[in-house]
Amino acid sequence: MGGVADGRAAWRTLCENWHLFAGTPSELWLNHALSLFFAIDEPLSAENADASFDQITARLADSDLRPLAVLDRSNVEVIATTEFALDPLDHHKTIVANGLGQRIRTTYRPDDVTDPDAPDFTSALARFGELTGEDTSTWTGLIKAHATRRAYFRDHGATATDHGVPTARTADLSLPDKQRLLDAALRGTLDTQGTEQFRAQMLTEMAALSAEDGMVMQIHAGSRRATDPVLQTERGRNLGDDIPVPTDFVGGLQALLGRFGNAENFRLLVFTLDESTYARELAPMAGYWPALMVGPPWWFHDSPNGIRRYLDAMHETAGFHNLAGFNDDTRALLSIPARHDVWRREVCGYIARLVAEHRVSMSTGAALARWLSYDAAKTAYKLP
Amino acid sequence: MGGVADGRAAWRTLCENWHLFAGTPSELWLNHALSLFFAIDEPLSAENADASFDQITARLADSDLRPLAVLDRSNVEVIATTEFALDPLDHHKTIVANGLGQRIRTTYRPDDVTDPDAPDFTSALARFGELTGEDTSTWTGLIKAHATRRAYFRDHGATATDHGVPTARTADLSLPDKQRLLDAALRGTLDTQGTEQFRAQMLTEMAALSAEDGMVMQIHAGSRRATDPVLQTERGRNLGDDIPVPTDFVGGLQALLGRFGNAENFRLLVFTLDESTYARELAPMAGYWPALMVGPPWWFHDSPNGIRRYLDAMHETAGFHNLAGFNDDTRALLSIPARHDVWRREVCGYIARLVAEHRVSMSTGAALARWLSYDAAKTAYKLP
Amino acid sequence: MGGVADGRAAWRTLCENWHLFAGTPSELWLNHALSLFFAIDEPLSAENADASFDQITARLADSDLRPLAVLDRSNVEVIATTEFALDPLDHHKTIVANGLGQRIRTTYRPDDVTDPDAPDFTSALARFGELTGEDTSTWTGLIKAHATRRAYFRDHGATATDHGVPTARTADLSLPDKQRLLDAALRGTLDTQGTEQFRAQMLTEMAALSAEDGMVMQIHAGSRRATDPVLQTERGRNLGDDIPVPTDFVGGLQALLGRFGNAENFRLLVFTLDESTYARELAPMAGYWPALMVGPPWWFHDSPNGIRRYLDAMHETAGFHNLAGFNDDTRALLSIPARHDVWRREVCGYIARLVAEHRVSMSTGAALARWLSYDAAKTAYKLP
Repeated sequence: MGGVADGRAAWRTLCENWHLFAGTPSELWLNHALSLFFAIDEPLSAENADASFDQITARLADSDLRPLAVLDRSNVEVIATTEFALDPLDHHKTIVANGLGQRIRTTYRPDDVTDPDAPDFTSALARFGELTGEDTSTWTGLIKAHATRRAYFRDHGATATDHGVPTARTADLSLPDKQRLLDAALRGTLDTQGTEQFRAQMLTEMAALSAEDGMVMQIHAGSRRATDPVLQTERGRNLGDDIPVPTDFVGGLQALLGRFGNAENFRLLVFTLDESTYARELAPMAGYWPALMVGPPWWFHDSPNGIRRYLDAMHETAGFHNLAGFNDDTRALLSIPARHDVWRREVCGYIARLVAEHRVSMSTGAALARWLSYDAAKTAYKLP
Repeated sequence: MGGVADGRAAWRTLCENWHLFAGTPSELWLNHALSLFFAIDEPLSAENADASFDQITARLADSDLRPLAVLDRSNVEVIATTEFALDPLDHHKTIVANGLGQRIRTTYRPDDVTDPDAPDFTSALARFGELTGEDTSTWTGLIKAHATRRAYFRDHGATATDHGVPTARTADLSLPDKQRLLDAALRGTLDTQGTEQFRAQMLTEMAALSAEDGMVMQIHAGSRRATDPVLQTERGRNLGDDIPVPTDFVGGLQALLGRFGNAENFRLLVFTLDESTYARELAPMAGYWPALMVGPPWWFHDSPNGIRRYLDAMHETAGFHNLAGFNDDTRALLSIPARHDVWRREVCGYIARLVAEHRVSMSTGAALARWLSYDAAKTAYKLP
Repeated sequence: MGGVADGRAAWRTLCENWHLFAGTPSELWLNHALSLFFAIDEPLSAENADASFDQITARLADSDLRPLAVLDRSNVEVIATTEFALDPLDHHKTIVANGLGQRIRTTYRPDDVTDPDAPDFTSALARFGELTGEDTSTWTGLIKAHATRRAYFRDHGATATDHGVPTARTADLSLPDKQRLLDAALRGTLDTQGTEQFRAQMLTEMAALSAEDGMVMQIHAGSRRATDPVLQTERGRNLGDDIPVPTDFVGGLQALLGRFGNAENFRLLVFTLDESTYARELAPMAGYWPALMVGPPWWFHDSPNGIRRYLDAMHETAGFHNLAGFNDDTRALLSIPARHDVWRREVCGYIARLVAEHRVSMSTGAALARWLSYDAAKTAYKLP
């Protein structure tokens, strides 16, 4: 691996420009990982680029850097991946077979069969029918297919579903209207509004299934995808050109919450990239709706400042116990300890200021620090 | 009263779940009232639920907890209620008769006859005509009825009006257009847009009347009412399911301010639930329009963090002297001292930081603390 | 000048009401200028109004208060004005002739010929054609006229262009569609939407020219102009009744960035009055697009609190090196030192807190303080 020329060249470029990351969470996470796992404590620079590259390369072969060892060292009790509905879950089968099913779980993320904008959507629906033995050309069959597939995911450890949507819009249409949307989707004749309605109705259907099967529902809303046409053409989707936009949670979630917001068995976690919704929308909504908890600051916002703004704007109206604790969706395994460490430190700093201002007592503060750092996430995701 | 089983059961539930309120302003207000009025200084818990219930129940019979005694003890110089236009003001008649008319005032809140979405709106308009001797089926008569009724409210101490509206939209229509809106309202054929226009025009009419009779006009805008259909069906309106939404003050208030924003005798206080409008819209508008002052943080935001965010975003552009000081619209009499105490402490803390940073002098800081805590409210509401 | 009665009366009014400015940046800037240039260190008041007026009047005649002396004393290396496209640049000709062309530069601000809402727009287009020898009744000729005029401005020191627009909307239309817009503009038949489209397309054209000629492009977006009809009638435009509104940078700049966001030679500086876009839109966009840097807090927001909110919300996602440092657009020459001083102090205070929290090292902090206070602006504006 040490001989991969591209890797070394890329690393040199990173090191030469390392000063550009000053004060960013990327710098913080990387420094943490470099220190904790590679004993590199000097700031990266053009001067130490080759040496650090060699040091990292050599270290990567060590057995204590294999994924399970990293999870052990970092005290990770549970980690969850997300897989699309059509994913065969082969890795998770192996994981279950190895007795690790309680620790490494999947999550049902059916964007491939709920979003008409997903690539090859109609053939995806057809494969979804084959996989589940349902007729996915009827709305009722399509929902049955989801129910079946969700059970399959639960067998591989899933306690939650996840839904990435450009807006938080939900709908509650009649069956004929729903079938019309599906027919149009299968014919490829859905316009922009129909596509949005399809996704909107699907969120409500997912809530209905969650109210039945108890899977925790997550909505990640509010990013405009693929803003750079050049990148799309040359390299494809999901490479950094997704940018947040204003998101309407009050009107958007109305249809879904109006039906399931009080449902006993239902839990909805909402994630936003639009901080103006913290105090205005999500905190009051979480304070009102029994089913609703607010997910942690996400993507651009799980940073020191981002976490402070989140706690500042959220806790007075939502209460700390409607916050879902912390998780993040990084794919960088070695950065997980750093990310949780930032959260824990910011939570403790925040709570400490409340204690210093006599707004919570010392013992309550200690309980809140534990809740936010540990118990909240287990509770929110119904982990045993 | 000690024997009311429902009350005790509800109190037990509250005490058992008291930890859920940690760090919220509700906890802070309740703790303050429990300590100040009931000498209960221990945090509520399942263990002390019955004892605290008994202690409170016993105390409630004491004469120093009667409303006037509470006002005395809390140094409340003036308190104002709000009544709908059709309210006979019977209680306020008694208050005036008892020589308390300067201290306990009413406020003209005519939502019952200005908002076509109000329950029984057409019959309300008819009764409004009877009450005032005006023909409220003509726009001109309807406005005369308001003028008459406002005078009646002033006779019962009112110095202000209050208007609760879903948006801040105002309008300045021709008389024929206004009459068309009224006709449609009376026939019950106003659509959503017409209803919004009716309210929008009514706000401008109220400004016109205020510019004449000098009553301070308050607009509380930006809450989506009744978001939970289940609650509406089972228990009704105004029970906690109202959630703030983005509010456009610049475009919304354009028609009203364009006509009366420079009027000598006119004062408009605006309240928002959308904090993103603090620095972007309300502070510059208050800095520009002679008639406009910004109301204090409201509803979810009269909390320690809420007040800090308000002052931080507001004072540099609006100036402290365009802020209306503090008031809140609680119905919980015993929480009033706590709410004002929070405001005063946060104001003093904020000003103290300005002094520490040499951004205002010590003597200016002292003057600002007094202004924000006391004089601003009297000035804003034209209290003698 | 001491004998101008209006001036003295106005100054008295200001002094009598000086307390209204407590804690505002206006107070801070004025105090700084009074102290630095006039040795007036006592707060203004009714009592010292006449004395301070006399003191200022006497001082204004001193040669060390002449503009160049002020620039020298304040260590101003470069200052740039903005001129409309039709401006003959007579003053700048003199400046160049006097060997000051590197220090006092113009900026190309062609709103007079890019915004159909500008006064006398059609005759402005005609004069633009005469001035450049191009046929500005064709879209292609109009763009050529810009190219010619931009070169003329560069000859007078311009390194940048500036565009004041109500929204950030950009467009990328076909040539026939563009010609149709221009035809309608020349006939005076553009409706509101056509006017917006004209401006939107013009921004993209300016980006195309900047990608060719290397001039730094600035967009100042998001103010609703002329909200007070009374002021418009009695005194005219640009006198304080412009109020910020929500601004959509993601959708708005899509067309422009999709074409030029990756262009080697192109640099775009964006200024916003809508702080909710800091963390949600501008920081992620600046992090993604090579061409984009974020301008400093502007207009209402280049204040102590405004700068803190800007840095807090911006730097984690954008990185400090995508920030354009500081500049402001005041016309008050004597307030320039104060404004830059506020920026430098707030930057240093902010960085110092990062250092104290061990989020950047001492040496990195020193480098960032210098970058933000000095080098960033020179880099952003391509100053030699």
